[in-house]
Amino acid sequence: MHKTSLLLAALLTFTLPANAAEPADAAAKLRDQALAGNRAWEIVEGLTTEIGPRLAGTETEARARDWAVRKLTALGFANVRIEPFDMPVWVRGSEDAAIVAPFPQKLHLSALGGSGSTGDKGLEAEIAAFDSVDALSAADPAAVRGKIVFVDHRMMPTMDGSSYGFFGAVRRTAPSIAAQKGAAAIVIRSLGTDHHRNPHTGQTNWAEGVKPIPAAALSIPDAEQIARALSRGKPVRLRLLLTPRQIGVRPSGNVVAEIPGSDPAAGVVLAGGHLDSWDLGTGAIDDGAGVAITAAAAKRILDSGIQPRRTIRIVWWGAEEVGLLGANAYAKAHGHEPHALAGESDFGAGRIWSLASRVNDADLPAVRAMAQALAPLGVALGDNQSHGGPDVSPLAALGIPIISPEQDGLDYFDLHHTPDDTLDKIDRAALDQNVATWTAVLWIAANGDAAFGRVSTKP
Amino acid sequence: MHKTSLLLAALLTFTLPANAAEPADAAAKLRDQALAGNRAWEIVEGLTTEIGPRLAGTETEARARDWAVRKLTALGFANVRIEPFDMPVWVRGSEDAAIVAPFPQKLHLSALGGSGSTGDKGLEAEIAAFDSVDALSAADPAAVRGKIVFVDHRMMPTMDGSSYGFFGAVRRTAPSIAAQKGAAAIVIRSLGTDHHRNPHTGQTNWAEGVKPIPAAALSIPDAEQIARALSRGKPVRLRLLLTPRQIGVRPSGNVVAEIPGSDPAAGVVLAGGHLDSWDLGTGAIDDGAGVAITAAAAKRILDSGIQPRRTIRIVWWGAEEVGLLGANAYAKAHGHEPHALAGESDFGAGRIWSLASRVNDADLPAVRAMAQALAPLGVALGDNQSHGGPDVSPLAALGIPIISPEQDGLDYFDLHHTPDDTLDKIDRAALDQNVATWTAVLWIAANGDAAFGRVSTKP
Repeated sequence: MHKTSLLLAALLTFTLPANAAEPADAAAKLRDQALAGNRAWEIVEGLTTEIGPRLAGTETEARARDWAVRKLTALGFANVRIEPFDMPVWVRGSEDAAIVAPFPQKLHLSALGGSGSTGDKGLEAEIAAFDSVDALSAADPAAVRGKIVFVDHRMMPTMDGSSYGFFGAVRRTAPSIAAQKGAAAIVIRSLGTDHHRNPHTGQTNWAEGVKPIPAAALSIPDAEQIARALSRGKPVRLRLLLTPRQIGVRPSGNVVAEIPGSDPAAGVVLAGGHLDSWDLGTGAIDDGAGVAITAAAAKRILDSGIQPRRTIRIVWWGAEEVGLLGANAYAKAHGHEPHALAGESDFGAGRIWSLASRVNDADLPAVRAMAQALAPLGVALGDNQSHGGPDVSPLAALGIPIISPEQDGLDYFDLHHTPDDTLDKIDRAALDQNVATWTAVLWIAANGDAAFGRVSTKP
Repeated sequence: MHKTSLLLAALLTFTLPANAAEPADAAAKLRDQALAGNRAWEIVEGLTTEIGPRLAGTETEARARDWAVRKLTALGFANVRIEPFDMPVWVRGSEDAAIVAPFPQKLHLSALGGSGSTGDKGLEAEIAAFDSVDALSAADPAAVRGKIVFVDHRMMPTMDGSSYGFFGAVRRTAPSIAAQKGAAAIVIRSLGTDHHRNPHTGQTNWAEGVKPIPAAALSIPDAEQIARALSRGKPVRLRLLLTPRQIGVRPSGNVVAEIPGSDPAAGVVLAGGHLDSWDLGTGAIDDGAGVAITAAAAKRILDSGIQPRRTIRIVWWGAEEVGLLGANAYAKAHGHEPHALAGESDFGAGRIWSLASRVNDADLPAVRAMAQALAPLGVALGDNQSHGGPDVSPLAALGIPIISPEQDGLDYFDLHHTPDDTLDKIDRAALDQNVATWTAVLWIAANGDAAFGRVSTKP
């Protein structure tokens, strides 16, 4: 037994209620075994190598589901199954762009998910530049009509990723605003924090009745190049070729696997990540890491040979990136079933530094017991206001209690939705710290005596 | 006057021969002015923004020469001129690649300079993998014929870039070896040290009589993905589309500018960088920085209002990347003229940490005087074995004395020859430290009383 475990066991003896001590002690042991593990690496290495990119609703996502069923079955989980649903599918086409005047040169960009097409001949127009979404919103349509809107902005790296919500409007809503004002197309500075020649794709949302226009993200060096070209005070003209298309309704699905508990009435403890990825990278940090971390944690519990009281359910959601389609399908199918606690790992593979939650006050001692088990990993107790990862947010909306181990995402938006989201970006020691965290969390959630009643969803 | 300058002036009083003290003191003053300058930034910002990529022999390199003449003239240099030469020109075409079996997915690669074409329909073949150029050299042609050779390797970052020579064979000679053994094509792990999805292009050399085959560099994450796919033990098939072509003989040229000296017989002090770049990035660190640093240093001397004893000549060489064509043209045209000292800045924009040289022993005191003037910048005295930057190597071969301020290149091969070689990679304070270094070096070289006789070129 490790020194930290001995220390923790001693600590728990004095600080935990007697009935919680046993699961916490076992959690510490499992946590330390997980720290030395490499199961998560095997999963994410396999998924990103043998499948690669997994765009929602496409053949690659279907292959990933079959791979997932084989993998989860081989690991020894029970009730492994695909829960299918249908969805409209968008796929990328050709992509090419250049400044044509005054300083001709190639640009690196990629279409946003849901982008319209320029047609095979492309289009050429002058830029109408804005330094924020607000400035675009305030613009006279006459200044935008027929032009290629360029929206610049800055986003700083943050550990908790909180800037993504604020700055995200540049990708989520600016294209729709530009379309409503009659723009021919829109290019945005990528919603990212790196300085590599990699565009950050991601879904854009078209307002009701708005016809999609070509919408693309420029790599950050390319956006800065356009800003410098504009600074010379002459009109800047771009040529764009973007030929994405909608290919109709296709199958997607969630992959589910379980460790059946001894007390089916006690409610499910749910954890997972999303199986789909954007098409540019191999989806290692978004979200191969998340599916690997949570499944490896559950596998550690499976290998303990002790049946948990509550059923532990692993879900690898489909079609997260294009609008939480798998999450909504799961909530619709299972939201009425008893769930004790739900959580998702979907913020990369950086170390966990905080344990956030959203449970009733009566259940907070269980979260504190988890935090005590995690303290040797450097994890602090966080707040009780969490909505969890994106795929559990529909469950949070139903009042299902949420657990949210928070990852260090300082470099997450360097890689997010880019071709650079590849396996080499994952630090194996940090990955194992994630598995150790989830192992302890799942163990205590499944075996502790907290009731985990539904949380009020009234404001 | 800065504190360091006062200290240096005091130091020089005691350590330099009386006749060298005056230029050294003035050098220190100019050095400190240069440290606070931003002229180099203006030059590299302008060149990379207003011209962008500058592939040798193409229209973009021609535009860069015209830009250079305007810029150097506006800065006040004398005898600004283009010295033209002709060259055969290779240009990139379409580039697309994928693993087709057993794990279908797209790959990121770029053709090497001089690569052959797959034709418009591309080609598909199984991989024959080698972990080094030596392993490829030793291979039975029967194991290679008709296949796509993949050469893996590792290169560590080094401060002095010395690994580039050793590992460079993977790009320079492996394609020719593969062609001689009957390979259909070759893909190499990029000759680089990063982990981004950016291929490192660069010239490959075909042995006499060898017909070029398609030859490309994979980004390092893609090379690692292929290695992982191969580790499963099944044949791995690739599809390649590469359509570069030779477009015939076109004009290139060197751009030359001068500060005429008061003693034309004393020999020219020559400094510069190369104006051409690879076509993937905007050539900021390779070598926009070098032309900017050396011109900004000369401009600082020009602005002192004191005519140097020796003529200071700035050369922005053409067509370096494809085989030192501008360097050879300059050596042929000017190698017989008196040159006191020659140096090139062509290893990025990192801080200078060492002053290397190749001068006669009798002239070493002048190099030591330079090193004393540079000590406040953190620059140490280096060895006297340097061949200088690539564009002065033909001059070194003629015995012309060489000066070589050595840059910290620990991250140089993260960016070298990739789309990521863009302006944002340059640290302005480090750029100014380079300008300060070259200012002091040029001043002492031009005004000191060292003879700088030709160096013996016998081994």
